Order: sequence, then structure tokens, then C-alpha cells
Amino acid sequence: MLIAMLAPISWPTPPRHYGPWELVTSLLTEALVARGVDVTLFATQDSITAGTLAGVVPAPYSEDPSIDAKVWEYAHLAHLFERAGEFDLIHNQADFPAHAFSGLVDTPMVTTIHGFGSDRILPMYAPYQDRVHYVAISDSDRHPALRYAATIHHGIPAGDFAFDPVGTDDLLFFGRIHPDKGAAEAIETAARTDRRLMMAGIVQDEGYHERCVAPAIDGDRVVYRGPVGGADRVAALGQAAALLHLINFDEPFGLSVVEALASGTPVIATRRGSMPELIDHGVTGFLVDNVDEAVAAVARLGEIDRAACRQAVLDRFTVERMADRYLALYKEILG
Amino acid sequence: MLIAMLAPISWPTPPRHYGPWELVTSLLTEALVARGVDVTLFATQDSITAGTLAGVVPAPYSEDPSIDAKVWEYAHLAHLFERAGEFDLIHNQADFPAHAFSGLVDTPMVTTIHGFGSDRILPMYAPYQDRVHYVAISDSDRHPALRYAATIHHGIPAGDFAFDPVGTDDLLFFGRIHPDKGAAEAIETAARTDRRLMMAGIVQDEGYHERCVAPAIDGDRVVYRGPVGGADRVAALGQAAALLHLINFDEPFGLSVVEALASGTPVIATRRGSMPELIDHGVTGFLVDNVDEAVAAVARLGEIDRAACRQAVLDRFTVERMADRYLALYKEILG
Repeated sequence: MLIAMLAPISWPTPPRHYGPWELVTSLLTEALVARGVDVTLFATQDSITAGTLAGVVPAPYSEDPSIDAKVWEYAHLAHLFERAGEFDLIHNQADFPAHAFSGLVDTPMVTTIHGFGSDRILPMYAPYQDRVHYVAISDSDRHPALRYAATIHHGIPAGDFAFDPVGTDDLLFFGRIHPDKGAAEAIETAARTDRRLMMAGIVQDEGYHERCVAPAIDGDRVVYRGPVGGADRVAALGQAAALLHLINFDEPFGLSVVEALASGTPVIATRRGSMPELIDHGVTGFLVDNVDEAVAAVARLGEIDRAACRQAVLDRFTVERMADRYLALYKEILG
Repeated sequence: MLIAMLAPISWPTPPRHYGPWELVTSLLTEALVARGVDVTLFATQDSITAGTLAGVVPAPYSEDPSIDAKVWEYAHLAHLFERAGEFDLIHNQADFPAHAFSGLVDTPMVTTIHGFGSDRILPMYAPYQDRVHYVAISDSDRHPALRYAATIHHGIPAGDFAFDPVGTDDLLFFGRIHPDKGAAEAIETAARTDRRLMMAGIVQDEGYHERCVAPAIDGDRVVYRGPVGGADRVAALGQAAALLHLINFDEPFGLSVVEALASGTPVIATRRGSMPELIDHGVTGFLVDNVDEAVAAVARLGEIDRAACRQAVLDRFTVERMADRYLALYKEILG
């Protein structure tokens, strides 16, 4: 089976730090290659794969200001679609632009919709649903106007996340510093429960950071570590009493949620978006509607078995499971 | 001959006020239709043509904030290219994105490059030059790395611009309020020659306007009329001693320059970009290198024959001439 995998070009595939779409694209690509599938990864030229890398884009536009995102996105798409006939199936991980080419090639296409941001993009989804097989990353993210071939949750390489059976008393914020991610709510919850808060992630909203986050950072009760990668990342995810994921938007999936669970760290999350699909309330964490409920949930963390958190990931959110499900979908489409 | 004409979707085709790419697209389309060519104009749904309008984009993105430019640009392109087989030739007036589709259809394509803004766009031009026939809008705008099928200057409907054999003593600034267009230089030149300056055009750079233009506007010696259209536009272009076009960039073409000339108004312009191709120094205006030279040129305006200004347009910059040249190019390409 010859698969063309279309990655976004915002970051390399896999990304160095942040880049969830590219991360999932890489995890799936490498898992498919490990299964013997012939995958050609269309990604930035600094990307890395055990499959075949096909890249015309010299560098990711979020890392290199000389890269004009619009120019290179078109070049990237043209590169793949001019070669469409070489492949049995195109798997598009890079949002709607690929759909514009779908009527000009015979190769079937799967699009993983990495979050249905806004109805503004619907004109590039609805007209193509007879031609492109859509995969939702959570049931909560399914748009009522669209047909989907499947919901396939993201999987993570559970072996990369060491199980920490004990954790610490600290609470953890892990994600972009942005109002969507509830950094301010995490700070408030930690203060009201008299816990230290460890924070990690890129600053995406500078104004919000200056107003709502930076004033609380004292290096003692609130510690901000910036983006963390590699071993630091694994350690940070495990060394916590809970991940506070008090989001203010309907998050389509939460990679950090399943990564924390894999490390044995339960998650206290807002009952929005995909959170009820990722967290078993009272078993692997708590679903809450506001900071008051988050504070109450911290007091109940003793009820959670950290081994059950990891087990939930092994059962439902591994890369292997994700790859199996995509492979089954490819086979179904190719008849 | 069946032509698919791809217009940009920033403005309607033709535009209501500003929108030079859409204006030229409309002028050419209507002139071709008048010659009996079967033209399908792919443009926003509020566009108007005597040919066949084909539109999926509900409104221009520069006029309607609910229109996501990226989403609708892809939808617009997909709409045309899925129908490519119906046409003998595609004439692309909408920059590089169409090139990404050129390898997937058999229909030959002409791209009018409405100004080669920056080398950043070269990756979407250079690789396609064996496949797409490029037209420069002035010799000055030809990029040394590209091959061109032709240079075809824009043409204007000379009949729409009434010849004013007398003009006035006033000087005229006509264009976007932006440093590129030299509004501040026009104000200085008018002040130093003790002439009234009439100004018309949209404010494109608010900060520049507040700093460099607004303080000089007194409604008497410097009069700002905002964007003007229709009969006001025609009158404004003719009722002047000269158009001051003291640009600070290599302008690829100047529609207002030839419109002023058509009205009998000579042009004092910076010797940059296409200006030496549009203006005969000492005959239809003056080419200058700085404000001192512009001031000196104002003193020499008596040397210019206003009838010669109009005649230059009738000889070289009419819509009819532009349409003839494009039609000859189409025929050459189609063998």
C-alpha cells in the first residue's frame, strides 16, 4: 500500500517542541512504516522519517521568517498533487487546502480534521464530503453538517512516558499560555488549594501572559519553565499530583491530557469539547465546570489510582491503536 | 475561443472604487466579449460582466469581513480548475496560487503578473515558467529570473476620460495614501510652488496619513476629497495643471498616470519602475529624481501640450490595444 502523507509546514515533522498536528502526523507515519506500509511523507525539508521524505519547502514557516507561508503552502500542495498518481491513497493532515485539488486527481483522500476551528472553514469541507473521507479526532469535534468515515482518537507512544507511581504534591499546567488553555484558572486553583503550580508551554498570547500569568510567577509557588522537551517533558508530566486542564474552549483533543495520564498523573479538566471522551470522571481524573469545582476536585485526588490512569492510555490512546484504526480505514476505502 | 478569466476576489470585478487588478481584469474581459470572444469570468458573485459570470465566492474579502480570504481563495480556484476542460485557455489575473493547479489540467494558462512584489513569491513563478505563459505589465517589472511571453501595458477606456484642454493651476495627487505613492512629497512640492494640491484616494496607511498628510490638509491649499469615483473622478483628473506621482517604489504600472494623461493632464513622476515607459519626458510630463526636480518641473509645465498627453494614451494605452495584444497572444499559444 502506497500512502502519501501530507503534513502541515508550520513546523517540522516531527516538531522540535510545539506542533501537535505535525506530531500526530509523525507518530502515525512512523507507526505505519513500522508495519511495513510504504509511506511518503510530504513535509518540510528538515523533517525526519523512516519512510520516504518528499519535501520542497526549505524550512517551517513558524520557525523561519524568510518562508512565506502562503507561497510555500501552494508549492507544497502542488508537489504532492502532481505526484498523486504514484499513490494508492493520500492522507491529508493539513486542513482544507488539499480539498481544492481533490477533484483533479483519481487518488482517494482521507483528511484528519485536527479540530474544526470555526464555521468559516465549512465552505471548504461541506462541498467535498462525497470525495474526501473525513476523520474526526473526537466525537465532540464532529460538525453536524458533515459526514465522517470515522472518529480516531490520537495515540501517543506510551513507552516514551515513564509511569510515575507516586507523583508529587504539585499541580501542573502544561500547554500554550493562552486564555483557551486556562492558565489563569490553573493559577487560581493552585492558590486556593495551597499547592505549588508548575507551568510549561510556549507563550502564545503575550498580552494575556503579561496580564494574567506573569504577575503570579514567583519561582516558588508558581514556577514557569517555558517550553520543555525530551526527558524534562516526561519528568514534568509525571511529577505532579494532577494536570490542571481548565480550558475555556471546546478542545477537539488534548495530547497533554493523555500524556499526563500515561505518566500516571490524573487530570482535572473543564467538561468541554473532547474532555469527557478522554477522562473517566472519578477514575482517571475529574470533569469540572468552574474553578470552585476544580478546587473541590483537588481535595479528592486521593481517590484516583495512578495506575488506572496509565492503563486507560494503554487501552485506548496508544500510537499502535491509532495506526491500526487508520490502516483499517485505508483498507476499507481501497476495498 | 473559450476563455476562462480568473479574477482576484479581494474586490468585485469591476471594483466599486479601488481594485486595480480587478479593474484591468474587467476592462480586458469586456473588450474581449465585445470582440465576440466567449469569456467566462470567474469572480465574486457580485461581479458584473457581459460575458458569463461563474462565481462561488459570495462577496469580496476586502469588503465583507465574514469572507475568510484563504478559505474562499481555495474554493474559487477549485471551482475554475474543476471546469478547466471546458476552456481553450485560462487567463489568470490572480497571482501565483493558480500555478499550483497548472500541472493537473491540460488547458494552457496565461498569467498577467500585476507587479512582481518581492522575491519571496519567486518559488511559485520560476518552477512554472515552462508551463505558464507570463505577461509583464511593464518591461521594468520583468524579473530577470523569469521568461515572459510578452509585456502588455494596461489599457484604459479613453472615451471615459473627457479631454480637458485647459486644466487648472492646481496640482493633483491621485492614489492610495501610502508612503509608496509619495503623498508627502506631493504636499511639499505644492507648498514650494505655491500651488493648491487636490488629493484623492483611499487611506491605506493610517499612521502615515496622520503623521505626514492630515496635518497639511486645510481645505484650501491642500484639499483631501477621499476616494472619488464616476464623474467626480473624471473631472478631478482633468482639472489639474499636473498629476504629482512622486512614488517611492518601483511601481510596475500606474493606472492613474495614464488616466491623467488621457484627460490632458501631464504627469510629474519619479524616475522609477514603469514611469519611463509611461511618460515621455518633456512631452507628456517630466521624470524627476527628487522634490527639488519636481519643483523645477512645475515651473516648466507651460512647455507641455495637453493634447499630446491625450494622444499618447490613444496611441499606446487604450483598452482596445490591450485586448488586441492579449488576443494575439492567445492565438499564438493556441497555435
